[in-house]
Amino acid sequence: MNTKKFLLQEKDIPVAWYNIAADMENKPRPILNPATKEPVGEEDLYPLFAQELARQELNQTDAWIEIPDEVRDMYKIWRPTPLVRAYGLEKALDTPAHIYFKNESVSPVGSHKLNSAIAQAYFCKKEGVTNITTETGAGQWGAAMAYAANAFGLELAVYMVKVSYLQKPYRRSVMQTFGAQVIASPSMSTKAGRKILTGNPNYQGSLGTAISEAVELAIQTPDCKYTLGSVLNHVMLHQTVIGLEAEKQMEMAGEYPEIVIGCFGGGSNFSGISFPFMRHKLKAGKDIRIIAAEPESCPKLTRGEFQYDFGDEAGYTPLIPMFTLGHTFSPAHIHAGGLRYHGAGAIVSQLRRDGLMEAADIPQLETFDAATLFARTEGIIPAPESAHAIAVAIREARQAKEEGNRKVILFNLSGHGLIDMAAYDQYFAGDLMNYELTDEDLEVNLAGLDRIITQ
Amino acid sequence: MNTKKFLLQEKDIPVAWYNIAADMENKPRPILNPATKEPVGEEDLYPLFAQELARQELNQTDAWIEIPDEVRDMYKIWRPTPLVRAYGLEKALDTPAHIYFKNESVSPVGSHKLNSAIAQAYFCKKEGVTNITTETGAGQWGAAMAYAANAFGLELAVYMVKVSYLQKPYRRSVMQTFGAQVIASPSMSTKAGRKILTGNPNYQGSLGTAISEAVELAIQTPDCKYTLGSVLNHVMLHQTVIGLEAEKQMEMAGEYPEIVIGCFGGGSNFSGISFPFMRHKLKAGKDIRIIAAEPESCPKLTRGEFQYDFGDEAGYTPLIPMFTLGHTFSPAHIHAGGLRYHGAGAIVSQLRRDGLMEAADIPQLETFDAATLFARTEGIIPAPESAHAIAVAIREARQAKEEGNRKVILFNLSGHGLIDMAAYDQYFAGDLMNYELTDEDLEVNLAGLDRIITQ
Repeated sequence: MNTKKFLLQEKDIPVAWYNIAADMENKPRPILNPATKEPVGEEDLYPLFAQELARQELNQTDAWIEIPDEVRDMYKIWRPTPLVRAYGLEKALDTPAHIYFKNESVSPVGSHKLNSAIAQAYFCKKEGVTNITTETGAGQWGAAMAYAANAFGLELAVYMVKVSYLQKPYRRSVMQTFGAQVIASPSMSTKAGRKILTGNPNYQGSLGTAISEAVELAIQTPDCKYTLGSVLNHVMLHQTVIGLEAEKQMEMAGEYPEIVIGCFGGGSNFSGISFPFMRHKLKAGKDIRIIAAEPESCPKLTRGEFQYDFGDEAGYTPLIPMFTLGHTFSPAHIHAGGLRYHGAGAIVSQLRRDGLMEAADIPQLETFDAATLFARTEGIIPAPESAHAIAVAIREARQAKEEGNRKVILFNLSGHGLIDMAAYDQYFAGDLMNYELTDEDLEVNLAGLDRIITQ
Repeated sequence: MNTKKFLLQEKDIPVAWYNIAADMENKPRPILNPATKEPVGEEDLYPLFAQELARQELNQTDAWIEIPDEVRDMYKIWRPTPLVRAYGLEKALDTPAHIYFKNESVSPVGSHKLNSAIAQAYFCKKEGVTNITTETGAGQWGAAMAYAANAFGLELAVYMVKVSYLQKPYRRSVMQTFGAQVIASPSMSTKAGRKILTGNPNYQGSLGTAISEAVELAIQTPDCKYTLGSVLNHVMLHQTVIGLEAEKQMEMAGEYPEIVIGCFGGGSNFSGISFPFMRHKLKAGKDIRIIAAEPESCPKLTRGEFQYDFGDEAGYTPLIPMFTLGHTFSPAHIHAGGLRYHGAGAIVSQLRRDGLMEAADIPQLETFDAATLFARTEGIIPAPESAHAIAVAIREARQAKEEGNRKVILFNLSGHGLIDMAAYDQYFAGDLMNYELTDEDLEVNLAGLDRIITQ
């Protein structure tokens, strides 16, 4: 194992988040009120989100938004995170490519999710909120929000997708240790949950359903706001600290990434690593490939349709312009629970539509092959989500070898997999399988879309 | 949550390990051949250990032993580790004490154990060894050795204490992901294991038994050496990087620790944090309290006897001068599996006998109370082992409050508990209990000692 880290100092933690919407020529389309089909304004979002977060959500003019000192101070608990040259992986692949990864797994909860959880908890607290709700898939976001809620003295209820609740009991325990209440979703505690359970008592849940439940509880509880770990613009914004640090660190390494890769669920870590580099593309015409790594079983960016759709299963949220598989899509039970979401955020969807980025869909077994090779060559056991980014990096490094081409590849290691070991056990036992989404299933789900975008 | 980190640079990673034996006025007594009762020489240890490790084991003259570049380079993967001022914990306790902790949980396997695993794997590899064996309790050491063996291309077999194998399946998975073979101990694969199982088929194992099995396999396998994660002098030596870094970091903080605390199983992390400070006591007469935090159910330093005893259950090892509960002692099934060992290392035992350090025995429930408070105030979920050190730090901080005394306390956070969440679940469910060792049980176990030390 032969590894080189590029380390920054606390003073190098960014002082502002990067708001890519300000630099986009084609702005993302507005989110719409489902009843009126009119654009949603800031005030319309206040019942759901802290006001400052609502403002960030709709801000398309300020490229830089200052990070409050209180948030930056908490970032210091684990940031800046290391950038690592993956010599061990390069050697194992015998590739001329140079592979770098940003190691976001070093946070106290083991993933990048804390970057936004702390910001959201901070703004809620500042505005007098006492209770918050959220949803979580694999539990990375829920654990981060539990940490942040505890840090700022907020009560938190987390709806955790049932399949992950059962697959990943340790992550539930982490949330409970930080004092959060965790409910398996779908649950009987909300109308949305009851409706689903009535129709399908064995339904194992989806992020879309969990969001419905968390939104419903937030709306019905006084002094309560809803928080979300991905998809929304303000979440992408907070995550840009990842790429902003990586930019400086790649300079330290004396290289520039020709390919930037992030795994893709709703877009949080993908945007975090890639938007600061996308900025070079938008503003300086830099030649750089940006690739979203998604599961073959949940391929919204590869095979979904660009259309207005709900962010949740029950249709409580505004309509978002997104590449979507349909908001009632029920993804296969892959272990990368954080990637089991039907749609992509509005900004990423626009960038994809404008041909500014690519997507790759990866079968589950390939992701665990990649994860195991990475663990044995770089010494970090990756989360099943992050393994998707590793798999694409490996594909690109192998192609570099075929072409005899010295590419520089950067990917984001969004989290570690120490709480996902049951998935590794199944992989080693030969009990994991691939789930390819059939054209039929895709069509059935897309057929339900109310097609507002006609061109 | 309000935390301050003191960070060092890569260049500050120590260049030499500190060998406290060279500075001790009363040297630890020699380890003895059980048959002849004669001191064991370097060569006698060669069948079991890499030669350089055998030399380190018996070295009582060189206070500083150079860290090979290859080992130091690998330390850079996660070292230097942060020193943290625990403002959150201080505030919750409303104590005038200043509490610092060294955060060894940031290593890729989540604990301090990697400090010695890498050194041992390096020396084995250098001497042409191809296979190694070891034992593990909770799995922290086994995971570290699996990481190190994989990094240096060595085959590894790990005997994991059965109760931990069942309690902590994720840590078994971690070892397997790094390519190690993991066997629940006692097993049918060794004479020592078969003998125990024949007498007691439901025996849940102990570190003593697992050591017997690992030693037996190593001796019977060509080009194979045995490695151990604690108790032995060379392990303590490697771990001193912890305290040597902490020494510099306390200087950065502008304070000096009046109390240094480490949890105690065989002594590895305790020695690591404390020996560099003990040096100030030995050489400069510095007034400093050094406290080993051990489980109430396995209180060798608090209630054991100073005597020659075997390091393992079957009696394969040389006789070690140690505070011991008797090598056939079967500890209660506490979740701090890494502390379930009957004896203390020779150096620590001598220091304790000479009154240079203290010990405190902590009930299991108190350790989980402390762990939960720490998680909620400092944001890191500690390993059940490390929670013993936290519990003692809290006792001291509370006493400081009573006395109105501004004490400076330093403890070692040896590892995180993300893979021990089942223990937290049991704690929150009210299913955990205390296990006090009765005088009767203690006497029964000590009665079996061959009392070579008569004064």
